[in-house]
Amino acid sequence: MADLPDKGTAFIDWYLAVVEEAGLTDKRYGVKGMNIWTPYGFLARRHLDAVLVREIEATGSQPVEFPTLIPETEFAKEKEHIKGFDEQVFWVTKGGSSTLDVPLVLRPTSETAIYPVFALWVRSHRDLPLNLYQIVNVFRYETKTTRPFLRVREIHFFEEHTCQVDEAHATERLRSNLGAFRQMAAALALPYVAVRRPDWDKFPGAHSSVAFDIPVGGGRTLQIGSIHHYRDNFAGPYGIRYEAADGSQKLVHQTTFGLSERLLGAVVAVHGDAKGAVFPTSIAPYEVVIVPIPSAEAGDAPLAAARELAERLRRAGRRVRLDDGDERPGAKYYRWELRGAPLRLEVGRREAEGRVATAVDRLGHRDRIPFDALENDVARRLAEFDRSLAARARAAFEEAFVLVARLSELAGSTRVGVLSWCGSEECGHKVEAAVEGALLGTPEEGLPIPVGEPGPCVGCGSTAGVRWALAGRPL
Amino acid sequence: MADLPDKGTAFIDWYLAVVEEAGLTDKRYGVKGMNIWTPYGFLARRHLDAVLVREIEATGSQPVEFPTLIPETEFAKEKEHIKGFDEQVFWVTKGGSSTLDVPLVLRPTSETAIYPVFALWVRSHRDLPLNLYQIVNVFRYETKTTRPFLRVREIHFFEEHTCQVDEAHATERLRSNLGAFRQMAAALALPYVAVRRPDWDKFPGAHSSVAFDIPVGGGRTLQIGSIHHYRDNFAGPYGIRYEAADGSQKLVHQTTFGLSERLLGAVVAVHGDAKGAVFPTSIAPYEVVIVPIPSAEAGDAPLAAARELAERLRRAGRRVRLDDGDERPGAKYYRWELRGAPLRLEVGRREAEGRVATAVDRLGHRDRIPFDALENDVARRLAEFDRSLAARARAAFEEAFVLVARLSELAGSTRVGVLSWCGSEECGHKVEAAVEGALLGTPEEGLPIPVGEPGPCVGCGSTAGVRWALAGRPL
Repeated sequence: MADLPDKGTAFIDWYLAVVEEAGLTDKRYGVKGMNIWTPYGFLARRHLDAVLVREIEATGSQPVEFPTLIPETEFAKEKEHIKGFDEQVFWVTKGGSSTLDVPLVLRPTSETAIYPVFALWVRSHRDLPLNLYQIVNVFRYETKTTRPFLRVREIHFFEEHTCQVDEAHATERLRSNLGAFRQMAAALALPYVAVRRPDWDKFPGAHSSVAFDIPVGGGRTLQIGSIHHYRDNFAGPYGIRYEAADGSQKLVHQTTFGLSERLLGAVVAVHGDAKGAVFPTSIAPYEVVIVPIPSAEAGDAPLAAARELAERLRRAGRRVRLDDGDERPGAKYYRWELRGAPLRLEVGRREAEGRVATAVDRLGHRDRIPFDALENDVARRLAEFDRSLAARARAAFEEAFVLVARLSELAGSTRVGVLSWCGSEECGHKVEAAVEGALLGTPEEGLPIPVGEPGPCVGCGSTAGVRWALAGRPL
Repeated sequence: MADLPDKGTAFIDWYLAVVEEAGLTDKRYGVKGMNIWTPYGFLARRHLDAVLVREIEATGSQPVEFPTLIPETEFAKEKEHIKGFDEQVFWVTKGGSSTLDVPLVLRPTSETAIYPVFALWVRSHRDLPLNLYQIVNVFRYETKTTRPFLRVREIHFFEEHTCQVDEAHATERLRSNLGAFRQMAAALALPYVAVRRPDWDKFPGAHSSVAFDIPVGGGRTLQIGSIHHYRDNFAGPYGIRYEAADGSQKLVHQTTFGLSERLLGAVVAVHGDAKGAVFPTSIAPYEVVIVPIPSAEAGDAPLAAARELAERLRRAGRRVRLDDGDERPGAKYYRWELRGAPLRLEVGRREAEGRVATAVDRLGHRDRIPFDALENDVARRLAEFDRSLAARARAAFEEAFVLVARLSELAGSTRVGVLSWCGSEECGHKVEAAVEGALLGTPEEGLPIPVGEPGPCVGCGSTAGVRWALAGRPL
């Protein structure tokens, strides 16, 4: 129970300590970068997945699951895509003691698994739009340092794949995805910026990519999701054609929307503090933890009252953990703060007798909740907690960006730079060299901080075609 | 829309036609035995998984997820286990263009992934019992003919792994599993028999195995799940020890409980009929399908009424599909019977005007449901449907067994034999030869049909140590 490293000055150490000490993961598995989802981490993931499912299905997307293994012959069909993933895939070459005729790839993403089948499913314009998603694990042979939830070799992954009649409808689908992600991020209280990536940093095979970035301190950023416009880049090689209303054969236009367990890492990174993890109510493994405080005078009364509260909250649909173990109450408070439970109810002699629980939320706000008003007051307190958490995250988010007028200001900047850019690749690379990181791209839905019109390009000084862009150091 | 093959005389053809035409799976993926979970099949699986999760968590088991890949070094530690799976595993030998130092196995089951970590997690008797489960995909390089849901190479799998202080507690855990499976099977309206497998047919590495078998016609049986007592067979090689209350170091005793997508195949196999699949309400992708019947005179009234009913049922928490497509109502009735929806509501001119829907359940029972009583009447009708479905399955189940007094009666039997067995392996093999199948074992929780006391062994005529046993042809 040592203190955690300082989040501000030793972010990665702090992060690694939190995910481990909060019991969200266990890294002691025998394959590097493949970690264990512990019960606590698994529950957070279950509720996170439920948020994603709810929001994507609200837009008319349907769930599917395609196989994990992809034949080499299909994997190699789209040239840019294979170039992007070739060095990152695990190969299955044997079954039992036989060498396989066609080696199989463990999917690093599922375009090449799904699109040959889309070519069978799409026949007519009446089959479109085809909006399907899956939540599966994907595999990448990462050579960089792995970090739980942020960069792993087996990744819990969300991917939507759609087919549309034309480019305009595909663009419209991406707009719907932007809306869905807005809802998802709101449920997690995560402020983010949607950024159109420069051409040299698109997803392999995509016509254009928009990523969702969050600042994680020190000028670093984390990509927590992305949406891609493929036009017919994949439809051509995979032959995904339909008969239009006029009888002509056309290629579909495709989009994808990708998210992963990084969202859970982002929740820890953004909301966590000196005491440990902090979960928004939406995905907290337990929304409410109830701690009875033993008392020689009160006998069983605190435990009986705690049980009553737990039972009533469960019946009201709350995720509740009654922590009736042998430890001191103080040790329990410490642990549930470390683990990020939104609300703790303490029930001692005074609470049991007065039938008023002491409520302490994870941000330290204390309150008293009469047993009579339990269900409503807990709902109100959790809603207030979520609002406070979102406000705290928003304030830190806005602090994390800085307006930059000259390349020299980017060197060693501890904030993400907002700058004017002419759009040329040459100036983009100048920015990347100056920031020792990446030109993230141009904000797609407004800027993270209020700025006016862009001035001259920080790279060349030109005012022609300038737009706002962001520069940071991706984690 | 051709007729289905006859279930009684061409069971496998009928089964394959149903799963395909009901849209539960698509077999046209590029790797043999690895099929696609279509939206409809995926929804059935989602609700099936929810039943398993509910029942296993009610017994205090917690969810986890271990990695998909297992290092060869861990995989090979338990000798019987590796012998049982060696020829059945896919091997990952390369990452990118590098050959891996230690080849990795795609888990065929997760003992060898989980137990090295259990050795880290279990320290003291206070850590026990450790009851954990996961729902993941496992992989087996099947050389036999593959069948959707019944025998595939990527299997959607449920596996509980537990550690207990001693053999008696492990036996107690298995008794709890028997109870949990009873609840699961009841939710699926699946009658089954729990059978203790003979020693020569145990799970590789187990001390004893009890399997859940169902008859699927023609004397054939399908194993739909199993529970295993490992004693300390794995705890030894993997070093899973704890400090007992008296300070001594002891090996844990372990149990496992395994289920898979076969349960979905079993639902199709058992409940399906000449019209197609039949889903019990618990796992039906849609519990209620609403079909508006267009009418020139009534204009939009049927569709408006259908929408009202759909919206109200959704608000009541029902899974509803409003089928407002262009086809004729008859084509829709045909399709939703094929796909097994429990209840159909028809709304035409007469229904819209009278505000009374026509309700037809999947077993053909017709009823009229006043709009005013919608939510209650639908709940009542679905409960009645589930009871009728369970009764139909139960009757067929009892018909599927036959008391057998002589080995000669087993040859070509179209029912599963119930017979007296002395318990010897020699007589067991005589039974297997006679039935051209398997001695399934001895019923663990009562017999499927009423019988008295066992007579002389069908193999040797001895009356010493005789017990009832079952003999059939596993699919």
